[in-house]
Parts: sequence; C-alpha cells; structure tokens
Amino acid sequence: MAVDEVKLLGFWGSPFALRVEWALRLKGIEYEYVEEDLSNKSLMLLQYNPWYKKVPVLVHNGKPIVESLVIIEYIDETWKNHPLLPEDPFERATSRFWAKFVDDKFVPLIIKMSSSTREQKDKVAEEAREILKTLESCLNLNKPFYGGKIIGFMDIAVAWIGIWAPMLEKIIDVKLLNEEYMPLLNTWFSDVLEVLVIKECVPPLDELLAHYKDYYDRFMATKA
Amino acid sequence: MAVDEVKLLGFWGSPFALRVEWALRLKGIEYEYVEEDLSNKSLMLLQYNPWYKKVPVLVHNGKPIVESLVIIEYIDETWKNHPLLPEDPFERATSRFWAKFVDDKFVPLIIKMSSSTREQKDKVAEEAREILKTLESCLNLNKPFYGGKIIGFMDIAVAWIGIWAPMLEKIIDVKLLNEEYMPLLNTWFSDVLEVLVIKECVPPLDELLAHYKDYYDRFMATKA
Repeated sequence: MAVDEVKLLGFWGSPFALRVEWALRLKGIEYEYVEEDLSNKSLMLLQYNPWYKKVPVLVHNGKPIVESLVIIEYIDETWKNHPLLPEDPFERATSRFWAKFVDDKFVPLIIKMSSSTREQKDKVAEEAREILKTLESCLNLNKPFYGGKIIGFMDIAVAWIGIWAPMLEKIIDVKLLNEEYMPLLNTWFSDVLEVLVIKECVPPLDELLAHYKDYYDRFMATKA
Repeated sequence: MAVDEVKLLGFWGSPFALRVEWALRLKGIEYEYVEEDLSNKSLMLLQYNPWYKKVPVLVHNGKPIVESLVIIEYIDETWKNHPLLPEDPFERATSRFWAKFVDDKFVPLIIKMSSSTREQKDKVAEEAREILKTLESCLNLNKPFYGGKIIGFMDIAVAWIGIWAPMLEKIIDVKLLNEEYMPLLNTWFSDVLEVLVIKECVPPLDELLAHYKDYYDRFMATKA
C-alpha cells in the first residue's frame, strides 16, 4: 500500500488548525505542516477551500477536507487507532453536540467581546462564563476526560479555550475562567493541556498573546 | 429486546424538524410525533434542550438528542438499514461539509433577506443564488441524488430548500431558483421531493405559505 500523503494547511495562531494537529498527533499520523500567511493566502488554500478561504485544510492523498470538526471525524474514520469519538451512538451524538455548541455559541461571543464597549464586554463575558459553566456540567467526575479514560473528540474540540480564554482575559480585561466558580473545568483544562501530545503542540504563549494583542489594538484603532 | 421508544419533538413549519422526519421515515422507524407550540414551549422541550430551546429533539428510550444534523447521524448509526451517509470517509466528510455549509451560509441569508430593505434584499438574494449554484456544482451528473443511487444524508439536509425557496420568492419577492441558471439543481429538487417517503411527509404548501407570510407581515409591521 502506498504511503499516505498528509498535508495540513494551518496558521500557527488558529485554534481550529490546532485542534486538527492534536487529532493527527494523537493518532500518530505523520503529516507535512504548511503555514499559511492569512494576509496573503496561497493559491493552494484558495483552490482547496474556495468556499470559506480559511484554515485548516487537510489534504490527504491530494483530496482536500475542510472545516475542523469535519476533518477530525475524517481522521477518526480513516485511521482507526486511538478512536476519538466514543463507540456508543448516544455518546457520539453528545460529543458532536458539544463540539458544535462551542463553535456556535462560544466563538461568536469571543468575536463580540473583542469589538464591544466596556459595558457590553462585561455582559458578553457573563454569557461566555455561562457557556463555560455549562461545559463544566458535562464533565464526568469519575473520568479524567470528556472522552473517558483517554482524550477524545470533545476534549480536542474544547481544550483550545484553556489557552485562548486566559489570553483574552489579559487583552480585553474580562474575567472568563474562575477557579472558584468552575473548579472542575479549570482542572480539566490543566489536565488536558498537560497530556504530552497536546503539550508538545501548543503555540508559544507569549507570541500568541503579542499577536492577538496587536490584532486587537489595530482593530480598536480603526474604531477610535 | 424491548421495543424502541422514539419520540420526535417538532414543529410542522420547521425545515430542521422535517429533515429528521425524513431520516426516520427513510429508515422505516416508527416514532411518535409531538407538535410543539413555539410561542408556548413545553416543559419537555425546555427540559430536553435547555441550551437552544428549539426543535427538533429526538427522544430515544428517554435519551434526548438535539440539533438536526447530529440527530440524523445518530439515527444513521443506531439503525443500520438504508445507510444515509456513504461508506467512504472522504465522501462522508464531503456530505457533512455541505450539510454544514447550508446551515452556516444559506440559513443566515434567509433570515437576513427577511429583514432587509428592497435594495439589500436583492443583494442578499444574489449571495443566496451563488450558494445554490455552488450546491448545484456538487451534483454528480451520473447519479440522481447526492447520496448516489439512493437518497442520503446530504439530500435530506438540503432538500428543504426546494420547498422553502419558492415560498420565500413569493413572500419576499426575490428570485432564488432559476431554471435556466441552475437547471440541474432544479431537476434534483423535483426528483428528491418526488421520492415517495419524502413526498408523503411535506407540510401543506398553502398553509406553510400563509404561516410564513403572516410571520413576515407581522415582523415588517414592527419595523414600519
């Protein structure tokens, strides 16, 4: 059987590309990582994802797959070792629901929070904390990860928040995570980000902070 | 083995609930349909879907599953006859991508179109036509359905547009479908809506039109 050619078009500061890298690494799949300049997108990106023109794109033996959660399911169905989704259909549906919930509900709040007045920011941050509290309520106290004993689909779909939320707290001056208010979720973030495969694949936090701070400052300058 | 208890909380005018009914009927699953009054939501709906408070909700042996595409995948994984998603992982990813694309891109345009000025309406309708043209480009000329020889996941995810678009054209006075501009998509809409299982489960078109017209008129009155 020919060797698989696996290429990932990503951007180092994208939580969605990061999710896919985590999935590839958890499966032990060798891949070529291609960094995209999002201010000057490559022809390859525009050709493979003309609909969204966004990273991540996984290119497997020449075939492009886009949208991070769709890619992770593709990876899970193509390489069977270290299953990411649970076996049981109800648990699979639950994992898919929560991953979608984060993308539908939490991601727009981050964007809203980054472009609001002081008063609006606090209101949106309150909504965001409610969502995090809801995510906490799905943790099973008897299992370390959403996926059970090993890290799975929902873990890698949600864990980026453990990196991005503290960063947003610094940049936008809001409170999102609170150890007293959501201790279990904070413990889970620490645990999942300590898993070696994940820990080895996290962008440098100071550079990430500088990147997003710069982005935010430039955005706010356009509104001044 | 105990008989499955399958209940669907729906609303007769919801395309998302309709998708799920089509999936259940294609599989030949017996279910109890529970009509929700969306202006006075039942405790059952609020209890089963406190996150979105929306239909459809599938309740299988007491366990709730929400979000139409998540439900359809659950149905496909639980009842194996008449597979809705293709077997091949790349084709599965493609089906999931396009279903998500419709929900992410087309649905917001419908909402935008319904609350715009005349000039904006035409601009948004142009965007909507582009999306429909893109959907047309995925049709395989050698196969009658997106799913191949038989109707599948992507067909039931997209087919509601064949009912809702002509209705919107009448209510909002825009042009969405055009037989000359997208003849293949128009033929596909006709074919899929002629499949007996689908045809038997379509809300009465005159009542649907009256319902949405009334909704639209009342909405516009608040803006006058």
